[in-house]
Amino acid sequence: MSEVTPGSAISQLLENPRRGELMSPDCPSRIILSHVCSRWGVLVLVALRSGMHRFSDLRRKISGISEKMLSQTLQTLEADGFIDRKALPVVPPHVEYRLTALGEEVAVQVDTLASWIQDNLPRIMQAREEREEREESMLVEV
Amino acid sequence: MSEVTPGSAISQLLENPRRGELMSPDCPSRIILSHVCSRWGVLVLVALRSGMHRFSDLRRKISGISEKMLSQTLQTLEADGFIDRKALPVVPPHVEYRLTALGEEVAVQVDTLASWIQDNLPRIMQAREEREEREESMLVEV
Repeated sequence: MSEVTPGSAISQLLENPRRGELMSPDCPSRIILSHVCSRWGVLVLVALRSGMHRFSDLRRKISGISEKMLSQTLQTLEADGFIDRKALPVVPPHVEYRLTALGEEVAVQVDTLASWIQDNLPRIMQAREEREEREESMLVEV
Repeated sequence: MSEVTPGSAISQLLENPRRGELMSPDCPSRIILSHVCSRWGVLVLVALRSGMHRFSDLRRKISGISEKMLSQTLQTLEADGFIDRKALPVVPPHVEYRLTALGEEVAVQVDTLASWIQDNLPRIMQAREEREEREESMLVEV
């Protein structure tokens, strides 16, 4: 019955998929954000910025990550198109992980945030301490 | 017994608190990262960039957040020194939330990442689809 009129809102939507809207609960951008911003997602993306890594290289670099969590994180980021996985047909198995072009772009953003936190950790820890002291002195006053 | 020798490693550490190291499991930067990068942490920081909000304003803006999660997220970010909470002595209670100077800085970083995801969602969804199609065709080949 209904046709898509050229230039109509529907036609524009079909041609130009919508920009994500993080404030909207059903937008898939929230799922992508949770993958990219997960504790291990951030660290895997940052680690891969320096180039190809094997599974064992990544596990060594990202101290504290379990084999299971690394494996899950790599699978999730691969499914989102951020990581390329290449299994070489050799014995023992040799699997290489690299950022895709899209992955490189998101990793730059994530790395900027991660670096900011690392650089400013002393300021953050100081702010936390000052706040605790203020709260303690308020308790004494009461 | 032991004195801090000027210029020694210990004295430098006392004067210049260390930069965070996210690849190290015990570094507090990992905790800060998890606060800032939590699903709701990201959205609260982004929402507050446009200025002061009351609790109910934030709940309306960040669609899908529960009262409990918003309250916890605000407390965590306040304890990190990113958010300033001001309770006005009126009835009914009127509480204002604002970014601190430090919070404004981290919110800029988080917002850049969030905007990248929103802007590039169409490309990400396309990459996901293409990968699914490739996997299906590989299953057919086998």
